[in-house]
Amino acid sequence: MSPPAQEPWEPSAELRAVADLDLDRGLRRGYPEAVYCQSKTPEQLKLIAAALREKEVRTLFTRASTEQAAAVLELLPDAGYDPAPGLLWWPAEPPEPSGGLVVVVAAGTSDLPVAREAQLTAEMLGRRTESVVDVGVAGLHRILQHLDLLRSAAVIVVVAGMDGALPSVVAGLVAAPVVAVPTSVGYGAAFAGLAPLLTMLNSCAPGVAVVNIDNGYGAGHLAAQIAAPPPS
Amino acid sequence: MSPPAQEPWEPSAELRAVADLDLDRGLRRGYPEAVYCQSKTPEQLKLIAAALREKEVRTLFTRASTEQAAAVLELLPDAGYDPAPGLLWWPAEPPEPSGGLVVVVAAGTSDLPVAREAQLTAEMLGRRTESVVDVGVAGLHRILQHLDLLRSAAVIVVVAGMDGALPSVVAGLVAAPVVAVPTSVGYGAAFAGLAPLLTMLNSCAPGVAVVNIDNGYGAGHLAAQIAAPPPS
Amino acid sequence: MSPPAQEPWEPSAELRAVADLDLDRGLRRGYPEAVYCQSKTPEQLKLIAAALREKEVRTLFTRASTEQAAAVLELLPDAGYDPAPGLLWWPAEPPEPSGGLVVVVAAGTSDLPVAREAQLTAEMLGRRTESVVDVGVAGLHRILQHLDLLRSAAVIVVVAGMDGALPSVVAGLVAAPVVAVPTSVGYGAAFAGLAPLLTMLNSCAPGVAVVNIDNGYGAGHLAAQIAAPPPS
Amino acid sequence: MSPPAQEPWEPSAELRAVADLDLDRGLRRGYPEAVYCQSKTPEQLKLIAAALREKEVRTLFTRASTEQAAAVLELLPDAGYDPAPGLLWWPAEPPEPSGGLVVVVAAGTSDLPVAREAQLTAEMLGRRTESVVDVGVAGLHRILQHLDLLRSAAVIVVVAGMDGALPSVVAGLVAAPVVAVPTSVGYGAAFAGLAPLLTMLNSCAPGVAVVNIDNGYGAGHLAAQIAAPPPS
Amino acid sequence: MSPPAQEPWEPSAELRAVADLDLDRGLRRGYPEAVYCQSKTPEQLKLIAAALREKEVRTLFTRASTEQAAAVLELLPDAGYDPAPGLLWWPAEPPEPSGGLVVVVAAGTSDLPVAREAQLTAEMLGRRTESVVDVGVAGLHRILQHLDLLRSAAVIVVVAGMDGALPSVVAGLVAAPVVAVPTSVGYGAAFAGLAPLLTMLNSCAPGVAVVNIDNGYGAGHLAAQIAAPPPS
Amino acid sequence: MSPPAQEPWEPSAELRAVADLDLDRGLRRGYPEAVYCQSKTPEQLKLIAAALREKEVRTLFTRASTEQAAAVLELLPDAGYDPAPGLLWWPAEPPEPSGGLVVVVAAGTSDLPVAREAQLTAEMLGRRTESVVDVGVAGLHRILQHLDLLRSAAVIVVVAGMDGALPSVVAGLVAAPVVAVPTSVGYGAAFAGLAPLLTMLNSCAPGVAVVNIDNGYGAGHLAAQIAAPPPS
Amino acid sequence: MSPPAQEPWEPSAELRAVADLDLDRGLRRGYPEAVYCQSKTPEQLKLIAAALREKEVRTLFTRASTEQAAAVLELLPDAGYDPAPGLLWWPAEPPEPSGGLVVVVAAGTSDLPVAREAQLTAEMLGRRTESVVDVGVAGLHRILQHLDLLRSAAVIVVVAGMDGALPSVVAGLVAAPVVAVPTSVGYGAAFAGLAPLLTMLNSCAPGVAVVNIDNGYGAGHLAAQIAAPPPS
Amino acid sequence: MSPPAQEPWEPSAELRAVADLDLDRGLRRGYPEAVYCQSKTPEQLKLIAAALREKEVRTLFTRASTEQAAAVLELLPDAGYDPAPGLLWWPAEPPEPSGGLVVVVAAGTSDLPVAREAQLTAEMLGRRTESVVDVGVAGLHRILQHLDLLRSAAVIVVVAGMDGALPSVVAGLVAAPVVAVPTSVGYGAAFAGLAPLLTMLNSCAPGVAVVNIDNGYGAGHLAAQIAAPPPS
Repeated sequence: MSPPAQEPWEPSAELRAVADLDLDRGLRRGYPEAVYCQSKTPEQLKLIAAALREKEVRTLFTRASTEQAAAVLELLPDAGYDPAPGLLWWPAEPPEPSGGLVVVVAAGTSDLPVAREAQLTAEMLGRRTESVVDVGVAGLHRILQHLDLLRSAAVIVVVAGMDGALPSVVAGLVAAPVVAVPTSVGYGAAFAGLAPLLTMLNSCAPGVAVVNIDNGYGAGHLAAQIAAPPPS
Repeated sequence: MSPPAQEPWEPSAELRAVADLDLDRGLRRGYPEAVYCQSKTPEQLKLIAAALREKEVRTLFTRASTEQAAAVLELLPDAGYDPAPGLLWWPAEPPEPSGGLVVVVAAGTSDLPVAREAQLTAEMLGRRTESVVDVGVAGLHRILQHLDLLRSAAVIVVVAGMDGALPSVVAGLVAAPVVAVPTSVGYGAAFAGLAPLLTMLNSCAPGVAVVNIDNGYGAGHLAAQIAAPPPS
Repeated sequence: MSPPAQEPWEPSAELRAVADLDLDRGLRRGYPEAVYCQSKTPEQLKLIAAALREKEVRTLFTRASTEQAAAVLELLPDAGYDPAPGLLWWPAEPPEPSGGLVVVVAAGTSDLPVAREAQLTAEMLGRRTESVVDVGVAGLHRILQHLDLLRSAAVIVVVAGMDGALPSVVAGLVAAPVVAVPTSVGYGAAFAGLAPLLTMLNSCAPGVAVVNIDNGYGAGHLAAQIAAPPPS
Repeated sequence: MSPPAQEPWEPSAELRAVADLDLDRGLRRGYPEAVYCQSKTPEQLKLIAAALREKEVRTLFTRASTEQAAAVLELLPDAGYDPAPGLLWWPAEPPEPSGGLVVVVAAGTSDLPVAREAQLTAEMLGRRTESVVDVGVAGLHRILQHLDLLRSAAVIVVVAGMDGALPSVVAGLVAAPVVAVPTSVGYGAAFAGLAPLLTMLNSCAPGVAVVNIDNGYGAGHLAAQIAAPPPS
Repeated sequence: MSPPAQEPWEPSAELRAVADLDLDRGLRRGYPEAVYCQSKTPEQLKLIAAALREKEVRTLFTRASTEQAAAVLELLPDAGYDPAPGLLWWPAEPPEPSGGLVVVVAAGTSDLPVAREAQLTAEMLGRRTESVVDVGVAGLHRILQHLDLLRSAAVIVVVAGMDGALPSVVAGLVAAPVVAVPTSVGYGAAFAGLAPLLTMLNSCAPGVAVVNIDNGYGAGHLAAQIAAPPPS
Repeated sequence: MSPPAQEPWEPSAELRAVADLDLDRGLRRGYPEAVYCQSKTPEQLKLIAAALREKEVRTLFTRASTEQAAAVLELLPDAGYDPAPGLLWWPAEPPEPSGGLVVVVAAGTSDLPVAREAQLTAEMLGRRTESVVDVGVAGLHRILQHLDLLRSAAVIVVVAGMDGALPSVVAGLVAAPVVAVPTSVGYGAAFAGLAPLLTMLNSCAPGVAVVNIDNGYGAGHLAAQIAAPPPS
Repeated sequence: MSPPAQEPWEPSAELRAVADLDLDRGLRRGYPEAVYCQSKTPEQLKLIAAALREKEVRTLFTRASTEQAAAVLELLPDAGYDPAPGLLWWPAEPPEPSGGLVVVVAAGTSDLPVAREAQLTAEMLGRRTESVVDVGVAGLHRILQHLDLLRSAAVIVVVAGMDGALPSVVAGLVAAPVVAVPTSVGYGAAFAGLAPLLTMLNSCAPGVAVVNIDNGYGAGHLAAQIAAPPPS
Repeated sequence: MSPPAQEPWEPSAELRAVADLDLDRGLRRGYPEAVYCQSKTPEQLKLIAAALREKEVRTLFTRASTEQAAAVLELLPDAGYDPAPGLLWWPAEPPEPSGGLVVVVAAGTSDLPVAREAQLTAEMLGRRTESVVDVGVAGLHRILQHLDLLRSAAVIVVVAGMDGALPSVVAGLVAAPVVAVPTSVGYGAAFAGLAPLLTMLNSCAPGVAVVNIDNGYGAGHLAAQIAAPPPS
């Protein structure tokens, strides 16, 4: 592999000690950079934010606590931030949408933060989105009344905890692929998301793509790729 | 607890070395004795069968291989046997049915042996039964077309492997309790039934009673108890 | 499935963004609606409570922290609340009891919050209940002295942590079905309820229906269904 | 949901006792029916095959042993069969390809049966496919020499056991989504595929869709959906 | 530690390549040597048996298949062998018994091989033993009728699979310690003995010593140590 | 079983609602009552303490937080309390020692609280004890220098976290039984005590009795039973 | 084994009650003593620090909280301390370096504390070190640009969470052994480091030595041993 | 990375369909190629063997059944083969030894096949080796009598199943690194090697490098790298 053409930008030694930003990822993969904030100090995040601002690279910060977000917002005041999923995006304005529709479905109200992370991510990667909330399989008519919307989607993200049964049901109703996100909603034998994760991996309906527990960012990214406009 | 009144029957020393038959269980609990055959030798089973014949106690033999069944049938030739679940029952004729209807639902064809074990058990404990087959959630219309039957049941046994999502859907459609039986049907992350077991324990619809993986006998027994006629 | 007859009630857009209340569940399944409070914000709960008040739908709120309960009580001041299990019910008065007796047994004092949740739920679903406390199998005479009460029940809920052995013992003593609730009481190899959960799933006595760890609500609901009066 | 328009075809009672074929799935979802063969008897499979032949429905039979395949081939002699993954497809000719290219990558030679199942499935669902074999991350130059092919794909299926590291590497090199299939290749702490499954769920590169262990069929199906031509 | 006084015996190079027999264990710990047969070839076992014969060391061979036992019996024809647990002991005659009584209780008939291994081991280590069979907690009167025998024991070995509840019940009835042996009897969520293992580790009655799943040898050894006569 | 002779003591209704004290346990089993404090409220503990004081029953309170201990000490001011293991005992004076010596060995300093709980429990049950600290297998000479003390014990309690290897080493050095207590000391793949638990269950030296993770109370109790004086 | 020559130093009774310092470890193994601080009280640590100061033994304190570090620093004010990994070392100056180069690679910024612990440990054991940061496999060019440095190392420590794929890639590029450290960085199905642990144990590239999750100390120690100068 | 210089050799299309032999691995990493035989057909192995013969590349075939070995031996008749570990090596003669001594220690006789695989691998990678057998920690004097040999090693491979305690003990005795190989020897709670794997990962002695369960090949390879002569 020839490494992607290196631009003549030189990160500071200080920055190099904490991060090797993959700033060419946008060029190479066509999508924004993402910074995973867990365990990063505010100082580390500021170094990174300063570099991104200098390079003008569209970026998502995932799992940012309010304290971490504050550090980033100091340097990138024109960023957007949603504390429920801890997602911060810069710049605040999404790109012009293209490609197919991404529909994000949350089985229960408690799944909303993860669903919101998926939806925001897909939008920041340039897709149109719609959302449907609180349509678990215990009351089937709730999901069935959205059948037209579901069938108009290029891809459907289904977010569910507990029994995680909704993706199987949705995948059986539509032709588009379903991205299933198990959540840690539940208790006891839900084992922090293990139960819905296994349910989704064993879906009796084909066409279900599973991502990590509570990984709304990953689901939104994958959905945006699936619904991408054909390469011109 | 004063032990139940002992009848003056004395088991042989030979039998006592391998089993202490709970022959009064019928009196105490109102249901037949059951003999779990796993790891029992044909000789042990013959000793047990002889004692049951002598005492004329209605009995189920569960998980009986064809070789084990042959040993029992030597002594109880008028028994019934279904090799798929390995269930043997004696006498072959079920008792006169009473109580409510037990509906047994198998999500897929591969779940049939477990479903059959549940259905036969419920019948041998004196219940009327009906069965519905191959109605997994990937094609919802299949289960929905049986709604009238489901709503006429006093209890519904739902047998499912893989994602184990069917009990949640069924429980959301009816007022009766649902007995959910996970099966070891599936592969990989089904982990021999762990996946549907967890799904069922985390059902988002209340009213789901879970039993052990592949435990058709236990499900049929529980269903028969739930659908029992009121004590007179 | 024809969806249940829609009443001409239109939820607000604000409410629709967080919940699709299954208000017809009472009609469809014959039991109250339940709102699972985990991860819900006080604002979301107030929106829901307001809608329920408007529609006059009997409802349980499960796993409500005192802060969440306060939010609901602002709108439904005539609700009942027990902070130990975090259960809130509205209206405070249970319906007139019908059907069979539900006996709730707690193996140890530490299992009381879960047992209380089961008992309150069964009462709010219209059943008579009795309770028995601290009768673990390490001192058998304690459970044996309640044999008459146990045998008068239509269904027995047994709540136990640690070794989870009590449901097997109780199920061997009675004809009625037993609903077994593992609790997270214990430490070390109890693995937050996994040990009693497995014990109960493997009960050597048939007639044991298992629900999720610490799921007193589910146990009480299932028991109320099992002890329901026969459909007229 | 109004169930899909029922054609006036009436399955025999014999067939209804073992399967409720979802023959409209092609209409509803746009893809062939699939029959999961595990635990099905040859007789059950013949009943199903006869019905499919009568209805002329394109079908895949997954996880068919040679004995099961022989039963199906008796009734559908013009089917194709690959014993390595146990996949049987009817008719033998794939449909005319449309949509984007599906590239299937096998990390090691031992992963070939699963990779082959994915490739055949995608072809039978109407996609063009290419394959790359034995390009594990222990010798990076092997995967890097296929970069042009990888970047021409609409979707890439990556099949890997053991450390399951290849999907992360591939996803970092391309813009298209990656469908990752863990396999049970390996031993010891591979835990029959659990290790690569977890690796893939935790991929540090976004854009990885995970399916069940050894689930080549599911991966091929999902890939075919992702690479489908835009709805006209 | 000064190593135990080495006797002037020199093992052959052939023997040294496969085993370093701890022949002084009898001296050091007061109990016979044991040879674990799993994965050992008949040739390796013969080398070992010959050395033991030469040194006249009382020995148990555990988990010996009939083929492995045949190899040992060639060299030690005066050994005893029970194929159910695969235990071989030499010489066949137990030592003169001393110390307290060891009572071995098997919850079910299927637990007999493990119980037998425990009983034989305790006898070969010099203890008197009694056994009780098929007294699971589903019929409490069965164990209660043996209360006098249980209370006369210096230690009780309780062997149980499935729910593994019997040791908790027995420990609550007596003053002596209980050695609990989980067995792999059961299926599904018994997880090959994990369920009763966890039950026993979480016993609500103190005084329960747990050994490995199916480890009748270890239980018998431990029981013999506990019931040993006081050092003179 | 005839229940033990009931003394004419009548617990208050208030107490009966939270506990059914097994006050005859001392008579029946010969050892003090124990109250497991986890999840009990101070009010519940006071009710229990008052009853115990009235009945003059020697009692241990396990896992008592300082707040819980304060509640008990209000009613039983002459109790002893060690906050490290959270053990409270009443009365403070141990009984006159009898039986054999109990040696408690802690592999590391971090295992001290659990070791202390075992030692105190054994003393309150009437045994002489000695302790050895910080003698993990990474420096073998540390344990070997205590060989004389170890060989003088009637039973040895070995407390170890991390690799849990010490009980195997100790059991190989002595004739007495070893009670092994895994602790949750460690991190990562110690999985809160699972690693040493498994190590101890698989000890290659026979004579190892395992109790629950961090269960110093259970280990001390079991050791006291094993070292009990012979019944007179 | 003759224990190492005992120096005539006598620890105080107070110290002996909490620790048996292996002060000869330096002599015996050639590396400093280490004190694992988890669960140790400040008082216990002060006793230990005083003894070490008296004996002038180079020591590492691992997993020291700031409060614990403060206690040690009171007695050893000339120690070094890094709060991120919680490592304290005394004396602050590393020994003169010898042996080969240790290169420490951190896959992501969040893995830095563990990487730093490994690097500091190797330095205090006498090795030269270099570090490389944020070179995860999602952007391969980042690790490839360090190939010369990697190939100059005697051993490479690779620290990675999430998918843990980096050690496989690095091991495939170099001749030196790789010490792989899984970290608990990640969420959901990372299961606190289990996922990268399994990945590393199943590396398709030979030459990967795995240590415990987050065990930077162990990795640095092992690396220092591997890169040690040949014994003279 | 510039890929290693490609020699002008062109694999056949037939071979390319099953394997992309990393023939330059010897150049790149300095060690022989290895072919993992699991799931490979005899035909695939013959294609690979023919290519290796043509290119004269020293190679190990791991986990080769006797049938697979026969296929390879047809083409490489001058290979060595040991059926116990299933290892085949070509050519049969090891290279001239260099570097330090590798000592391989097997805790029990049942661990011999894995130990043999490690030893043979190290020899074929050019190291001198010695072996020690049956020196488990239950009889400490057995390992202690080999202290001189252990201390003369550059690296020690310790192979152990069951409790897996031996590596901790050995690592505490020597300055050299220890490569620990857990084996699947044992039963019950050994969980096919999980128990010794966890033990080894949690070793209280630093300097323990863990490889996969039963991975003698990996251990021998790693040991050979650690004991390699310094680069000239």
